[in-house]
Amino acid sequence: MDPESPRTKPQVLRRRTLARTRIFHVEAIDLRFPNGVEVRYERLRGSAHGAVLVVPLLDADTVLLIREYAAGVDRYELALPKGRIEAGETPEAAAGREIMEEVGYGARRLEVLHRLTTAPGYMSHDTHVVLAYDLYPYRLPGDEPEPPEVVPWHLSRLDELLAHPECTEARSIAALFLTREYLKP
Amino acid sequence: MDPESPRTKPQVLRRRTLARTRIFHVEAIDLRFPNGVEVRYERLRGSAHGAVLVVPLLDADTVLLIREYAAGVDRYELALPKGRIEAGETPEAAAGREIMEEVGYGARRLEVLHRLTTAPGYMSHDTHVVLAYDLYPYRLPGDEPEPPEVVPWHLSRLDELLAHPECTEARSIAALFLTREYLKP
Repeated sequence: MDPESPRTKPQVLRRRTLARTRIFHVEAIDLRFPNGVEVRYERLRGSAHGAVLVVPLLDADTVLLIREYAAGVDRYELALPKGRIEAGETPEAAAGREIMEEVGYGARRLEVLHRLTTAPGYMSHDTHVVLAYDLYPYRLPGDEPEPPEVVPWHLSRLDELLAHPECTEARSIAALFLTREYLKP
Repeated sequence: MDPESPRTKPQVLRRRTLARTRIFHVEAIDLRFPNGVEVRYERLRGSAHGAVLVVPLLDADTVLLIREYAAGVDRYELALPKGRIEAGETPEAAAGREIMEEVGYGARRLEVLHRLTTAPGYMSHDTHVVLAYDLYPYRLPGDEPEPPEVVPWHLSRLDELLAHPECTEARSIAALFLTREYLKP
């Protein structure tokens, strides 16, 4: 089948909020598909402006990962720094701020490489992957309960990182592969 | 810093359910970090047995993607087939069932390649990436509101897929790169 073929989207009949907490907004959405089938889905609304996942490049083969406690899985995770885009920020500005807060570096050059979704079936979240080059030491205070550990890793040793039990996050893994492809001579 | 170094996890002081809908279970978790800082996080509990993301290989260079409506982002998404692991199922069995339901193929050989998390900071979800080889046509009825389109794609043309506006899901992108690495001669 032709993946470019247009396909009529289902019609949204009704949306309503099911639950709202400090972080999460759960919504019910009633849909009617073109074939007449009606279904109710539930989904999470993401933050209004999306998020950034930053690939801080200390040099052409060295990325700076962070190791911090991840409450969802109740263990430490080794991943790329990330954070929300605030109102009025560009993805590049958010990425620059996040690495100052989490990694202790600023970047003279920032470049949006790709856009990723987290779970498009039930989350609206949109994440911009931003490359950060020409780094210089600069720290802004962050809101982490303990300072994240910064772990330099060579892209040429990506296979060893993938075998590390603390490196599991799909967005970071996708972004590291995308970066390696992009920087490939 | 040594990424292998042990680091003491924060202590869980209290957990309670904040909201529960048909699909989502939002939990508050109060933590005390080793440095004495106390924080409250919110997180989503995933399905009890985890999920599978299947890489159905029609031949060594052809994966079968599906194109289906994704309610979170309100558009069609081109991704690998996935689904929950049911009670008592192995990841391999769940993967075999899912591709019968979504792709219309059974697999004579199934192999767990990797484990991915979706958003470890606030979701407990765990996804097994399962390679499915030696396919044969076999369809089980699924619970989709409309039959998913099956879209064969060559791994050797992964760059074109990544440029496709409907291919955004981080887990699928990570799994496709992992598969290409694994099958690399």
